[in-house]
Amino acid sequence: MIKPIVLFYECQHLQTSTIKYLEKYFNIISLPNPDYDTDEILSKTNVIFAPMEYYLGQEKINSCKNLQAIASPTTGLFHIDVDYVLKENINICSLKNEQKYLSTITSTAEHAWGLLLAVTRRIPSAYESVCEGKWIGREFGKKTPRMISEMSLGILGLGRLGSLVAGYGKAFGMTVYYYDPYVGNDLYITCENLNDLAKSSDIISIHVHLNAETENLIDRKFLQSIRQGSYIINTARGGIVNENALLDALISGHLGGAGLDMLAGEHLPGFKDKLIEHQLIKYAKQHDNLIITPKIGGCTRDAWEKTERYVVDMVIAELEKTFEHEHIA
Amino acid sequence: MIKPIVLFYECQHLQTSTIKYLEKYFNIISLPNPDYDTDEILSKTNVIFAPMEYYLGQEKINSCKNLQAIASPTTGLFHIDVDYVLKENINICSLKNEQKYLSTITSTAEHAWGLLLAVTRRIPSAYESVCEGKWIGREFGKKTPRMISEMSLGILGLGRLGSLVAGYGKAFGMTVYYYDPYVGNDLYITCENLNDLAKSSDIISIHVHLNAETENLIDRKFLQSIRQGSYIINTARGGIVNENALLDALISGHLGGAGLDMLAGEHLPGFKDKLIEHQLIKYAKQHDNLIITPKIGGCTRDAWEKTERYVVDMVIAELEKTFEHEHIA
Repeated sequence: MIKPIVLFYECQHLQTSTIKYLEKYFNIISLPNPDYDTDEILSKTNVIFAPMEYYLGQEKINSCKNLQAIASPTTGLFHIDVDYVLKENINICSLKNEQKYLSTITSTAEHAWGLLLAVTRRIPSAYESVCEGKWIGREFGKKTPRMISEMSLGILGLGRLGSLVAGYGKAFGMTVYYYDPYVGNDLYITCENLNDLAKSSDIISIHVHLNAETENLIDRKFLQSIRQGSYIINTARGGIVNENALLDALISGHLGGAGLDMLAGEHLPGFKDKLIEHQLIKYAKQHDNLIITPKIGGCTRDAWEKTERYVVDMVIAELEKTFEHEHIA
Repeated sequence: MIKPIVLFYECQHLQTSTIKYLEKYFNIISLPNPDYDTDEILSKTNVIFAPMEYYLGQEKINSCKNLQAIASPTTGLFHIDVDYVLKENINICSLKNEQKYLSTITSTAEHAWGLLLAVTRRIPSAYESVCEGKWIGREFGKKTPRMISEMSLGILGLGRLGSLVAGYGKAFGMTVYYYDPYVGNDLYITCENLNDLAKSSDIISIHVHLNAETENLIDRKFLQSIRQGSYIINTARGGIVNENALLDALISGHLGGAGLDMLAGEHLPGFKDKLIEHQLIKYAKQHDNLIITPKIGGCTRDAWEKTERYVVDMVIAELEKTFEHEHIA
């Protein structure tokens, strides 16, 4: 039997174990990135791994005359013209709606908790002070009004990740509130609206997808409603938080601190070139109550390997279905 | 009624709320540190707050001719000649054996978890890279083989703090092992000996007191028995870990990383002057898999306030007992 052809890109940094696994079932073509695509390659490709940074639209899809499946080890599909793909009867194999599998991927929730503990206890700054030869633990205690167990946690979005983080809060002895218009859980205290969440929570952790409803959800009004000295943790998309308002709340001291694993526009071209001038990064360099990490929430090798393997298995299952169908027909 | 006299020292940094509370019940004398004691002051003192950094021995106790109670908001009493104090029928009001109260003080356990997440995900280094204008999340993912939920946790000492940290591990989906010859808990898996703990655990968190039995417990042999790439978290006393062996295990790469809130000799005079030459600190400056913080585990303002208040209340209760007894007699 001739193996189907899979096309993927070096810019996707697929794990070595994934590539080995692909080689068992596919003939593989690897290019640096989609700028290197040729009509010849595309026309014989059966499966394409779609990189997040490049839009896969109608024109390119039309060039793939033998395409059977598009693979994307992501939950979001903003980088694919989904409507057109479905109209063309091409399968999309992604993590969207794979809730059961996704519940085993805990790395982002774990990092949210890491940011929460790191910023409330000023761990990077404490570490730096030791590296400078100082031993001034008491100074850090003065900046830490309360133990975690004496604080309340507010979860914005009680989906997969929000639920994990809510569970961590419970284990740490916190009172856990949440705001989510779509789901509920009796283990935690529900808030009628965003304002109630702001008023109830000492630490707010954001776990909603970015869409028209959630863009700029953490705005100036919200940040003025929060408790004096409270904290914001964001491991979801940057655009959910109004960064100018966040900076003002930090400068005024009304916000006690923040831990961010994302910044707005992180997926846009040129984002990385302008980081040094970014107002929040400038603030983070001068203060120990804002910790920014470079989107490392989902970054663990086992999560990458498991997720890519899961998507490859979805592709194989899809191709087998087609194969069987063709043989039956 | 004449208020009893309490003596405390500025070097103890008692919280403002504690001093205000003391003023209600006592006439207070405050000195910079015990080097400023005079026989006149000591002879009229009824209650003394004993600072950890100064030994309160027989000679000084004899100078306190009207001493009724010694207060120390600590669990350890190494700084007091306990046998002599008890022989003299003076009360010691400390946190030793105050298990129920201590179970509400969670700050050290929380910091242990903060170090665990900070070192496994390289949070300080990731933060620093962003401050330098880089956005290289994937590089940090490459250094993170596994999610926390895919790792096992080993608790050395299942007392108050060890139990809290074991609970956090459970909430994070870890398999939790422990070694403790004195207590047990069916929620977690017990290890017969230290070697079993070393072989079972991806992350080991230390929660034993420092004594003859535990000094140097984490020695070269233990560090050779641990799993390749595992982590050590120490928020207990520094002397429990052999620092030369730890450094060698880090350099060889057998130890994946460590988070330390303590160093050996932290309580000894001159410790702070030599930090810059400390071999572990030199290593920490050059690598992102060793995070050292300056004994901030117990440092939160509410823990200080609650604890000092608790000890003052113990003192008041003791003095009232004596007072009633004298009136009855």
